[in-house]
Amino acid sequence: MIGKLNHVAIAVPDLGAAAAQYRDTLGAHVNPPQDEPDHGVTVVFIDLPNTKIELLHPLGDDSPIAGFLAKNPSGGIHHICYEVDDIMAARDRLTAAGARVLGDGTPKIGAHGKPVLFLHPKDFTGTLVELEQV
Amino acid sequence: MIGKLNHVAIAVPDLGAAAAQYRDTLGAHVNPPQDEPDHGVTVVFIDLPNTKIELLHPLGDDSPIAGFLAKNPSGGIHHICYEVDDIMAARDRLTAAGARVLGDGTPKIGAHGKPVLFLHPKDFTGTLVELEQV
Repeated sequence: MIGKLNHVAIAVPDLGAAAAQYRDTLGAHVNPPQDEPDHGVTVVFIDLPNTKIELLHPLGDDSPIAGFLAKNPSGGIHHICYEVDDIMAARDRLTAAGARVLGDGTPKIGAHGKPVLFLHPKDFTGTLVELEQV
Repeated sequence: MIGKLNHVAIAVPDLGAAAAQYRDTLGAHVNPPQDEPDHGVTVVFIDLPNTKIELLHPLGDDSPIAGFLAKNPSGGIHHICYEVDDIMAARDRLTAAGARVLGDGTPKIGAHGKPVLFLHPKDFTGTLVELEQV
């Protein structure tokens, strides 16, 4: 069911420093920051030849990653995103298997403008998994 | 400098349950477990179309991931691995930029039989980064 790994998201306390490190020290292609007010984050996408890294930094007072950074002040890997062809079919298969979908179970439009869902980390080896319909 | 994302490694408390979840619930291609006594882990590789997920479980009494699982009993993302063409050149560039290489700075042979190094998470946004020469 799952397809490609769309991205690995890393929450960072200093977006400029993290972007510079990926650009200058690791020599990767780093895109300009994008504010995503609907998601409470500013993101920097890093293009690798086969997938993307998504650096996340809180935007606004009610960011969903503020708590994560409070617990992990140096930053850390926040979630991984797998691509699916049909997000509603994926949701139904997952919930039938006992997995919990975060929120009300309705896909939202993610940072790439496509429908996304998040699965409860407790149901997936402690890992926050995002599914994105591509 | 960095190339493809070679894999995302997830430490799991129950390797059989995690492998079954990826195979049966997420519908991914899951390979048989491999013991890696030199690394103190048993690994299960999951093939995605563009990269791999590496499930890790402690092997033996002195596993390097035992502490991680003690702190994260449900499991969690342990490290990400980027490919490089020349691991010695990568090491020299990173240490010149102030990054710390774990251990004595000499590449070891990783789970894929290729030279690897790990970078100190504090120097990389709280993320344990493995570099693998391909």
